Amino acid sequence: MALEPWLIAPVSAVASLLIGLFLYNYVSSKDAGTDRMKQIAGWIQEGSRAFLKTEYTYLGAFVAVMAIILSVALGVKIGLTFVFGTVFSGLAGIIGMEIAVKANVRTANAAKNGGLIAAFPIAFRGGAVMGLMVVGLALFGISIIYWLTGDPETVLGMSIGASTLTLFMKAGGGIYTKTADIAADLVGKVELGIPEDDPRNPAVIADNVGDNVGDCAGSGADLFDSYVAAIMAAMILGGTMQIAYLQTLPLVFAGLGIIASIIGIASVRVKEGGDPGTSLNNGTYITCIIFGVLTYAVTYLYGYDIKIWYATVVGLLAGIVIGMTSDHYTSINKGPAKKTAEAAQTGAAINILTGFSYGLISCFPAFLGIGIGSAIAYSLYGVYGVGMAAVGMLAIAGTIIAGDAYGPIGDNAKGIAEMSELGDEVVDITDEIDAAGNTTKAITKGFAIGAAGLTALALLASFQEIVKDLLQQSISFNLMDPIVMMGIFIGMSVPVIFSAMIILGVSKNAHRMIEEIRRQFREIPGLMEGTGQPDYNACISIATKGALKELLPLIVFTISTTLIVGFVAGIRALAGYLSGAIFSGFFLAILMANAGGLWDNAKKYVESGHFGGKGSDTHKAAVIGDTVGDPFKDTAGPSLNTLVTVISQIASLFAPLIVAYALIGV
Amino acid sequence: MALEPWLIAPVSAVASLLIGLFLYNYVSSKDAGTDRMKQIAGWIQEGSRAFLKTEYTYLGAFVAVMAIILSVALGVKIGLTFVFGTVFSGLAGIIGMEIAVKANVRTANAAKNGGLIAAFPIAFRGGAVMGLMVVGLALFGISIIYWLTGDPETVLGMSIGASTLTLFMKAGGGIYTKTADIAADLVGKVELGIPEDDPRNPAVIADNVGDNVGDCAGSGADLFDSYVAAIMAAMILGGTMQIAYLQTLPLVFAGLGIIASIIGIASVRVKEGGDPGTSLNNGTYITCIIFGVLTYAVTYLYGYDIKIWYATVVGLLAGIVIGMTSDHYTSINKGPAKKTAEAAQTGAAINILTGFSYGLISCFPAFLGIGIGSAIAYSLYGVYGVGMAAVGMLAIAGTIIAGDAYGPIGDNAKGIAEMSELGDEVVDITDEIDAAGNTTKAITKGFAIGAAGLTALALLASFQEIVKDLLQQSISFNLMDPIVMMGIFIGMSVPVIFSAMIILGVSKNAHRMIEEIRRQFREIPGLMEGTGQPDYNACISIATKGALKELLPLIVFTISTTLIVGFVAGIRALAGYLSGAIFSGFFLAILMANAGGLWDNAKKYVESGHFGGKGSDTHKAAVIGDTVGDPFKDTAGPSLNTLVTVISQIASLFAPLIVAYALIGV
Repeated sequence: MALEPWLIAPVSAVASLLIGLFLYNYVSSKDAGTDRMKQIAGWIQEGSRAFLKTEYTYLGAFVAVMAIILSVALGVKIGLTFVFGTVFSGLAGIIGMEIAVKANVRTANAAKNGGLIAAFPIAFRGGAVMGLMVVGLALFGISIIYWLTGDPETVLGMSIGASTLTLFMKAGGGIYTKTADIAADLVGKVELGIPEDDPRNPAVIADNVGDNVGDCAGSGADLFDSYVAAIMAAMILGGTMQIAYLQTLPLVFAGLGIIASIIGIASVRVKEGGDPGTSLNNGTYITCIIFGVLTYAVTYLYGYDIKIWYATVVGLLAGIVIGMTSDHYTSINKGPAKKTAEAAQTGAAINILTGFSYGLISCFPAFLGIGIGSAIAYSLYGVYGVGMAAVGMLAIAGTIIAGDAYGPIGDNAKGIAEMSELGDEVVDITDEIDAAGNTTKAITKGFAIGAAGLTALALLASFQEIVKDLLQQSISFNLMDPIVMMGIFIGMSVPVIFSAMIILGVSKNAHRMIEEIRRQFREIPGLMEGTGQPDYNACISIATKGALKELLPLIVFTISTTLIVGFVAGIRALAGYLSGAIFSGFFLAILMANAGGLWDNAKKYVESGHFGGKGSDTHKAAVIGDTVGDPFKDTAGPSLNTLVTVISQIASLFAPLIVAYALIGV
Repeated sequence: MALEPWLIAPVSAVASLLIGLFLYNYVSSKDAGTDRMKQIAGWIQEGSRAFLKTEYTYLGAFVAVMAIILSVALGVKIGLTFVFGTVFSGLAGIIGMEIAVKANVRTANAAKNGGLIAAFPIAFRGGAVMGLMVVGLALFGISIIYWLTGDPETVLGMSIGASTLTLFMKAGGGIYTKTADIAADLVGKVELGIPEDDPRNPAVIADNVGDNVGDCAGSGADLFDSYVAAIMAAMILGGTMQIAYLQTLPLVFAGLGIIASIIGIASVRVKEGGDPGTSLNNGTYITCIIFGVLTYAVTYLYGYDIKIWYATVVGLLAGIVIGMTSDHYTSINKGPAKKTAEAAQTGAAINILTGFSYGLISCFPAFLGIGIGSAIAYSLYGVYGVGMAAVGMLAIAGTIIAGDAYGPIGDNAKGIAEMSELGDEVVDITDEIDAAGNTTKAITKGFAIGAAGLTALALLASFQEIVKDLLQQSISFNLMDPIVMMGIFIGMSVPVIFSAMIILGVSKNAHRMIEEIRRQFREIPGLMEGTGQPDYNACISIATKGALKELLPLIVFTISTTLIVGFVAGIRALAGYLSGAIFSGFFLAILMANAGGLWDNAKKYVESGHFGGKGSDTHKAAVIGDTVGDPFKDTAGPSLNTLVTVISQIASLFAPLIVAYALIGV
């Protein structure tokens, strides 16, 4: 076994973890600044830990129950790998959060002392820790499971563990962050007229914590989950084929992807007067090129079928196309954002309608990318080609996550600079770092959605293979079969209802926090004057518990609907159900991410002095659009990918029982 | 032939037309009131005619070009039946508009002289003219074509003619009405501070015309198109089966549906102190029951398979369920509207998010209704069962359209009462008539969308039958076939882009009209003081031409995308494409109709004195939600049904050429 090519996977995974640790120490070794800065950073750190602690306590119970159910229903092996997956995914979340709350204050301090050149590497390397740790942990975990069992279907257990935890982290973090954001703004800015990020506001720390738990830990975990799911699906599909190397090839390519990501991350530098945004994008392009070259070389050396390489590259290209069009539809310098800002001149309604319309239009290139990309990949190498296209898209996840996690670090650095009163110059530098983060964020989101879409298709294909294997006969899911069609309609409902309930959850939870903020201003003497000390933890606790309270029933609803459809209406309905969830989930994910990003940037465009600038009626209209977009882009939208992944994997996992016991048979 | 059962269709169609004419004369014979009322009604009538004239001129050219293309590509017979369909659909539009502009002023006058008891019958019988004429013309037209050719596939030509015209009327009327509405409000109410429906506002007549061309003519034509399509699809499906009576059975049941509608319409009465809303709903229930009884009797007498009757009733029930849940999610007295109004207290953004969320949730019962309804219908009698379920849903269209067309008549009556200064008491009566219209409107919209969804599934099934017939072999559209999947993703884009472009079109067109209104106030002396005469026609002309200008490229885009997908990627891609269009089209149609209706009623709830009432900040927030909802519910949403119907029929029509010439074969 010693010389098998797939061992590149654990080797590069360990390398990734070691480099991640090295960068972690690099960031930690920097100075955290003045006492005031340390104090504020301490509050954020404490709040973030408090959130994670509460969340993980609840999750521990949930995971234990799930593990017991899975062990009883499907065997102890699945139960154990499930727990294994949740632990690895949870670890990725903790590390991401820890490094983010260290890097933010150090970035602010470096901006104060050394300017952009000193600050940028800290912010980016903080993000890189997250990126490298996520892919390192994921690939290392898969390697261990595969080494122990030799069976990709046990990797499914790990993958579903990771996905379930991700769903909690993304959706829970999403509710948390918008709860705090909306409540802090409404009472602070609107009712009391105190500025944003004012330390007198009891919700201000919760708001900053939200950036970490929602954006940073959440999106790291998101790609963790798609990454594991894509590799697992391709391995299952490879296992059904006649050629031996196909089962482990996804591991080989993923290992090469990590090497490419390490080189790409190392190449990101900003010179004096340089533009951080360009550097970040160059890092992504370099990673892509190196990944292409390395996989081509390995394909050539080991004599793999070149068509598989083509399929992998098709996936990578589709990811780039979707990312770039997301950028076009959301970027502050492009037509859609400017036109949406212009529309705000005729009021909030027209601003919202315009942004919503462009959000709808932005779905078209993504639909084309996924539709045509998967069709080409299939024509090259069947369903395995589709699986490898998903792997190709996700292989560069290390670099993508690094760029993504960089965003909230910059955002927090700006907040700390403002709260610690470091002066306009420092705030401007952190602003520049933050702005570059917004561009990469748009690209990353498009990329993550595209990857999830392709992964979902690969999961659907692997579901079919598992069913075929169980039935010992081929099965087709015909669109004209009314059981399939009924499944599609019910499946379409799940992301739709999930989005609705989670948005309503934010609004309910924000109301709870608003009451608490008002109570503190009423009851704590001297709070408004700056002499009283607000109870930050009370707000943090409300945001945390409320988020989990809104979320748990939703996740139970999702899992049980999937099982009900399967056990009542059978395998064909379930295939339709999965497809329906992909259709509406993919659509809503893109719409919400892009419309939300667009409204945000339209508001920023107005704030930068256009159409009357800050404080004008146009600005007020644009702010309303931005607030509508907040839960779209930061709560509902990003959870949908994971929701679809969870559903697909639950279906695959329970396929044997459903085939055996469903009311409506095959 | 004389005694064949299907002759009930032309006989009841002629009866329907005669009763319609009788009611037309009844309404016309009433007094139109004072000179001032006649003058205002004259302006609306003139404007409506001007709109129709311009639209029909453009449409004439479009229809001619299409007829030539169809004749060349598919034979003169199809070209001719296409023209026949457009003429019948166009005629239904003209009649609907003519009666609406007569009934509105007469309703207002009757309210003045005789109160609710005198006014209600005029408004409702005005609506009934529309309902009876639409179903009468449609079924008479189908009967003629079928009598001449004996081939349901030539009815397809007529059906597509009707659908194309409907798309123009609904989408064009939708752009028109919201253009005028938004422009009149923004300049009149916001900039100049003059009240709504003030005759000094040059856009005021266009606004009232909009109610007629958008709501009245548009939605009559909508059901015309679904009605014809459903009957035609069921006839095609019946023609492929072994049992002879199945091909004409849809005509028999449709004929019985007309008889049930006539009785149901005749039963609608309001007593002194009675509630018009209850009467309208009772009329619908009576129609349903009579339809059920008549079809059961005929099934028993002629020995038809009872399972077909069950399938028909399943369709009817699904329509009622969808209509009733739409009512729950939009009605002013129910939880969702109240909670959305309550959310407006925390500002426009939360109001919009809450309404949007409930709109999303409201899709669930509709998805279940269509999904489970079609599966049950299929299990009863295969694809023919699905076709007959659609016929069952649409058979009572006469009553449904009557209730729907009643709405804008009441709305206009209220406008005329206000503009003619008939006093508060009269306005209150017309208000009550108007309010009852809003309830029926919600039910009707849900019903129309459900009917269109089921019809689209029936069309998809007939597409498959046509292809099977052409290939002389069975063909399956497998979800795991990547060509089908690619088709689904591209098909999903079409309603998405159509919605976006049409909303952007409203906003562009409103800007044009705003400029014109400002110009008139600037240049016409004494306009603001009430001594100058505004140029109403200039605004009407801008609304009309702009609507067509925004629309034509969209329709060409839709038709050509359908043909490109078919001819490039073949029949399987096209089947996926049709399904994808159904998925996203059905979803967006329900979401937009219900969210739009909900915001409207949430605003009305605030206006009725809750949460601060008219003029409060809550009210302002609710108005923003309502404005966002306007193009949702009156422009984009209602066009989507027809869009999907047009696409499905184009695909069926061109199937022979696509099978023969597509780049990617079967």
